[in-house]
Amino acid sequence: MAEEKKQFRVIGTRPIRHDGTDKVTGYARYGADIHLSGMLYGKVLRSPHAHAVIKRIDTSKAEALPGVMAVITGRDLPEVADRLEELGEQVTNIRDESHNVLATGKVLYHGHAVAAVAAVSPHVAEEALKLIEVEYEVLEPVLDVLEAMKPDAPLLNPNLRTRGIGEEDGKPSNIAQHFQNKHGDVEKGFAEADYVVEREFRTTMVHQGYIEPQNATAYVRPDGSVTIWCSTQGAFAVRSQVAQLCKIPVSKIKVVPMEIGGGFGGKTVVYLEPLAVLLSKKTGRPVKMWMNRAEVLQATGPTSGSVIRVKMGCKKDGTLTAAQATLIYEAGAFPGSPVGAGAGVIFAPYRLPNVQIDGYDVLVNKPKTGAYRAPGGTNAAFAAESVVDELARLCGMDPLEFRLKNGVKEGDRRADGPRLPRVGYLETVRAAMESDHYKTPLEPSPDPTKRRGRGVASGFWFNGGGPSSVLVKVNEDGTVDLIEGSTDIGGTRASCAMIVAEVLGLPAEDVHPHVVDTDSIGYTSVTGGSSVTHKTGWASYLAAQEVREEVIRRAALLWSVEPAEVEYHDDGTLTCKSDPSKKTTFKEIAAQMNRTGGPIEGKGTINAGGAGPGFGTHIVDVEVDIETGKVDILRYTAVQDVGRAIHPAYVEGQIEGGVAQGAGWALTEEYYYDEKGHLLNSSLLDYRMPTALDLPLIETILVEVPNPNHPLGVRGVGETPIVPPAGAIANAIYDAVGIRLTRLPMKPSYVLEELIKAGLTS
Amino acid sequence: MAEEKKQFRVIGTRPIRHDGTDKVTGYARYGADIHLSGMLYGKVLRSPHAHAVIKRIDTSKAEALPGVMAVITGRDLPEVADRLEELGEQVTNIRDESHNVLATGKVLYHGHAVAAVAAVSPHVAEEALKLIEVEYEVLEPVLDVLEAMKPDAPLLNPNLRTRGIGEEDGKPSNIAQHFQNKHGDVEKGFAEADYVVEREFRTTMVHQGYIEPQNATAYVRPDGSVTIWCSTQGAFAVRSQVAQLCKIPVSKIKVVPMEIGGGFGGKTVVYLEPLAVLLSKKTGRPVKMWMNRAEVLQATGPTSGSVIRVKMGCKKDGTLTAAQATLIYEAGAFPGSPVGAGAGVIFAPYRLPNVQIDGYDVLVNKPKTGAYRAPGGTNAAFAAESVVDELARLCGMDPLEFRLKNGVKEGDRRADGPRLPRVGYLETVRAAMESDHYKTPLEPSPDPTKRRGRGVASGFWFNGGGPSSVLVKVNEDGTVDLIEGSTDIGGTRASCAMIVAEVLGLPAEDVHPHVVDTDSIGYTSVTGGSSVTHKTGWASYLAAQEVREEVIRRAALLWSVEPAEVEYHDDGTLTCKSDPSKKTTFKEIAAQMNRTGGPIEGKGTINAGGAGPGFGTHIVDVEVDIETGKVDILRYTAVQDVGRAIHPAYVEGQIEGGVAQGAGWALTEEYYYDEKGHLLNSSLLDYRMPTALDLPLIETILVEVPNPNHPLGVRGVGETPIVPPAGAIANAIYDAVGIRLTRLPMKPSYVLEELIKAGLTS
Repeated sequence: MAEEKKQFRVIGTRPIRHDGTDKVTGYARYGADIHLSGMLYGKVLRSPHAHAVIKRIDTSKAEALPGVMAVITGRDLPEVADRLEELGEQVTNIRDESHNVLATGKVLYHGHAVAAVAAVSPHVAEEALKLIEVEYEVLEPVLDVLEAMKPDAPLLNPNLRTRGIGEEDGKPSNIAQHFQNKHGDVEKGFAEADYVVEREFRTTMVHQGYIEPQNATAYVRPDGSVTIWCSTQGAFAVRSQVAQLCKIPVSKIKVVPMEIGGGFGGKTVVYLEPLAVLLSKKTGRPVKMWMNRAEVLQATGPTSGSVIRVKMGCKKDGTLTAAQATLIYEAGAFPGSPVGAGAGVIFAPYRLPNVQIDGYDVLVNKPKTGAYRAPGGTNAAFAAESVVDELARLCGMDPLEFRLKNGVKEGDRRADGPRLPRVGYLETVRAAMESDHYKTPLEPSPDPTKRRGRGVASGFWFNGGGPSSVLVKVNEDGTVDLIEGSTDIGGTRASCAMIVAEVLGLPAEDVHPHVVDTDSIGYTSVTGGSSVTHKTGWASYLAAQEVREEVIRRAALLWSVEPAEVEYHDDGTLTCKSDPSKKTTFKEIAAQMNRTGGPIEGKGTINAGGAGPGFGTHIVDVEVDIETGKVDILRYTAVQDVGRAIHPAYVEGQIEGGVAQGAGWALTEEYYYDEKGHLLNSSLLDYRMPTALDLPLIETILVEVPNPNHPLGVRGVGETPIVPPAGAIANAIYDAVGIRLTRLPMKPSYVLEELIKAGLTS
Repeated sequence: MAEEKKQFRVIGTRPIRHDGTDKVTGYARYGADIHLSGMLYGKVLRSPHAHAVIKRIDTSKAEALPGVMAVITGRDLPEVADRLEELGEQVTNIRDESHNVLATGKVLYHGHAVAAVAAVSPHVAEEALKLIEVEYEVLEPVLDVLEAMKPDAPLLNPNLRTRGIGEEDGKPSNIAQHFQNKHGDVEKGFAEADYVVEREFRTTMVHQGYIEPQNATAYVRPDGSVTIWCSTQGAFAVRSQVAQLCKIPVSKIKVVPMEIGGGFGGKTVVYLEPLAVLLSKKTGRPVKMWMNRAEVLQATGPTSGSVIRVKMGCKKDGTLTAAQATLIYEAGAFPGSPVGAGAGVIFAPYRLPNVQIDGYDVLVNKPKTGAYRAPGGTNAAFAAESVVDELARLCGMDPLEFRLKNGVKEGDRRADGPRLPRVGYLETVRAAMESDHYKTPLEPSPDPTKRRGRGVASGFWFNGGGPSSVLVKVNEDGTVDLIEGSTDIGGTRASCAMIVAEVLGLPAEDVHPHVVDTDSIGYTSVTGGSSVTHKTGWASYLAAQEVREEVIRRAALLWSVEPAEVEYHDDGTLTCKSDPSKKTTFKEIAAQMNRTGGPIEGKGTINAGGAGPGFGTHIVDVEVDIETGKVDILRYTAVQDVGRAIHPAYVEGQIEGGVAQGAGWALTEEYYYDEKGHLLNSSLLDYRMPTALDLPLIETILVEVPNPNHPLGVRGVGETPIVPPAGAIANAIYDAVGIRLTRLPMKPSYVLEELIKAGLTS
């Protein structure tokens, strides 16, 4: 299917991003920039308890405060259907989402929304929150998945029964789901092994770390139609969720996606939008809401903490014989952790004759988890890649040689079932082996209190697809507008525009991309799953092809020949096969379009399949400070099969960003709860993400194995790079100090504790 | 070509207009509602003289006023090309438009823009205007076309030479153009006539009377790209004009058409937009500008005053033998009156063997004229219909019988050339004859000081076409969005939505129309020439057909049959020809679209020919107050061939509105200049438009002769109804008092003067 061209004119170049000027000059409009006449400000009252029954809410004093226009509680939300809604990589249950948006009956985590106020100023709204009286019956919280799985654990939802394995039991449980993926016979496989390693790993919740907090402004008009301005990865997903949560037809809701200050999966589920809608409906005025950072950290969806047990076996020559894993993921307050994805990722790079994976989705009194870049992948790979590293060492093999020996290629079966199409995993391993980084020996630290080590790890991501819609229209000056519904997070305005430019033989800057509202373009699924350059790029390709065909017809009309006589060249010129004197250009046809039949437009719609399995292999050098336990990253190289790098600079940027986030997860980031379930580090001073000072310049090596299921070979690239870092860094630490760390984050206190245990310091 | 259906489901019904709630609740956003951060306010300094040389402009004091951010004069406008730009029914010369936007060298009318200021508040901007020093050398103005045509008249533009007849002369002149349309031999025709009537008519400039003044907000971003929010009949026309006037590529300009508070032709040319762009460019901040009512009346484009001479001859049996006319139209300060259209209208209803029409476009020191509903038609028809009435009386024939005898039908040739396709003129005459109004004898007034009379007149309008673009996209809830570029003035959101609903078998309210900006839809020509339901309706029809085809393909896919097996019924249900058990609906297909191949969209683009010649015949009863000269309209019936009434209520509304404006033009409206060229009545108190108290309920009779050149038979309807009223009222006044009035407006002072002359009062 891939259209192999010897050479592209635009694809593979690095033009300035189309939205660059707007962003650096402050013209780009974010949700915070919305100001409407008569606008009110909404604030949310949140639970101080991790687990409690709401006995009574009295809003009367708040309502009596001058300037307060409306107060809502869970009672104001309509009863909604118990149904699943797909949001890219995430699935949300609408009834759970309703309970998450405003608690009814019980609060299930510290920060759970209990009531919301609309007032004439944010200050009055905050004052009003203090006047809302809530009587709680505080219950014992359960914060650890292993505790939560115990039969006598406090139950978050007494009506919840386990789905999947154990379903027949029928007893209430915090285990929302237990599944098993399996092929071959692991017992037999382990019996065949010369070396078997088994370990348990633990990770904590971590946050996506987007800079812009959640925000939403809603205006419900007198006829019941609604406009919502918000920061989202998917305007149509917001439309659909609000429609269901507020019981409004989708076509009565217009969602205007404002510019987005980061999402990384965290902006696919709604939190404030339904509250703003209900408050606007109640007041007849626009209502603007935004979260402060503490609210973002307490009450939006981080990714799961987890307990993962991995057992793998291999022969002396390194051949893997069996792998087994148990993944227990925190769902948070409602079912829906990414444990399924984690189970898909954990052994994905390896050809395994015998494999068994058990997955558990377990409720705990923490916020409902959400999608975060390759959801569930980093912690899974951390576990498996640590064990693989250990096996390679037992075999006395280079860890990349070990991966080359066992690595998957086209036709191999992934542990969770499907056979692979053409993928580039082995190519990434080879490129890593041939890299300057891997070929350059690591020098020991000149500082005797510091030890250096090198680690490698591989990672996989599925890469998603989904429906997308594009309109391309021609301007009289020979430029084109690209109208799309995909939120641009990672440079997809540029990549989609470049695809249109390539097809039409135009410079990239002559294609003007516009991300429009849900009224103005066809359905487009969320920007997530590394899908946009694949699916919206594909729709752009189809739309541009329609334009190209029409331009050919116009030239044929002007020349009085059949369209088949017209040749459209890659540089945007057209010639006539039978008469070489006839020449024209896209720009000339554009200038005449209204006189040759009317405006020229092309549309492209698609429901694209997945954006091609993505594999990466990372190399990292670290230095461990024996006295403090602090780990510094000295050098980092990420190799990845990116299919076709439409705009290599943004592909590299995606990889660098994924590594940075993975490094944060590996070394410093964690949700820190006390025993009562209070989040103790709900600020970006205390929730420690890596800064520029914490990271070296990340080196990237792009391997291009075109995705056979995309007309231009595009493969998803944004998520794969967050999968290997934690494993690679853990392996490097082992290489440095000989200690196998099994918990994330590998923060100084934990590392120091292990160094002391190992007698390396005191 | 017309798709004849026995019956339509949606077309011909009267659903509530889609934009109704927004308009009555104040949600609809007009240009005045634009507020941007850091916004400045722009004001224009205007000439106090009708004709003067600008000797010197000193802006230094204004620039020094605190709060003033920029001052511009004609020098700030770039040199632009001497080229014509089509704006629907109007053509503008870009160089003239540049000089009109800001005078350079000379001012040519009272109110001509001389400089513009941007300041932190409108008040500071107004103060600054007073500080701009302009030294004028005042010249003699020329205000009357006959004076202006004289060889020794003061010249507005010493470089102007007459185009057309007299071109070879080569002398400077105020006559911009002289053309002649002719066929047969009028001398011979008049020789054959038994009766010949010749008269001269005079009319003054009149205004479109839109409620919302011109306004524009512009923001030029640091990369030079521009956004303009304005009130316009054509966002793409604004884009094109500003691009040429400011020398910016069209694709760097985004025009956001705000809701429009009336236009009637007056909002196709730009006045403030280029000034706001230049001021924003100079200041780096958004600049908002609006006109007050005096500026609107003094300095935007009214329609021409005129001198029209008509000579017609007929035999005793009423057969017309010849017609001759000379139309001399005020162009205003720059060439471009609608005299060409007037020449096309003047004898259009009549089959004429011999005809000769001379047209003159003449400069005078008044504002450059603009389009106004059937530009140039009302005054032309006033002249011809008065003469036709006189001839009928000479023949002793009923005036409608006279028209029936001489009226045009398919295959007849219009005086200016083209042969007519199927038209419904004779049908309108017959319907008028059979109307309750015409069959009901007019009772004499019980008041002896009042005389009653009945008059009839016919009228014609070309009806335009042009390029248009539409996107129709399907929502998951089975509704569709209609995305279009046509400003909705007369209910075209509704009419286009109804066409989509008809094609797809949906209720009208399930189609949601959206008028979007120039970045978001293909090129769409101005809302003018009664073209929108024709051209954008046609594009909507094409787009809906694409959706329909795709829905059929999806049903075929779901049923595993060939698309040809699928039948799409008018109620939106689909069945399988070979298997009656297979049934589905548009809504079911819509709900599944993402899983059956992706989102469903249809696009339609077209460059539509004219919207079918339109004819109407009006009947009016008036009462003339002999003591005051005041004329009251007692009853009014307008019959019109409307082709196909998509939404009959809005068609009727168009006709009622056209009659109301025609009645104002007939009786009270005029630009009143003193001898120095000062406009003395530049307010809506003094410029007297009819109010609800001045008019009876206007009765309408819709004749539907489908336009053969439109898939649904749509014919333009909005302009024809303004053409007959002045003639019909003049004929009714004659019927009442026996006086042939030859000037517009037929205001009390003029009528009284004639009554006194005729000895009917003293």
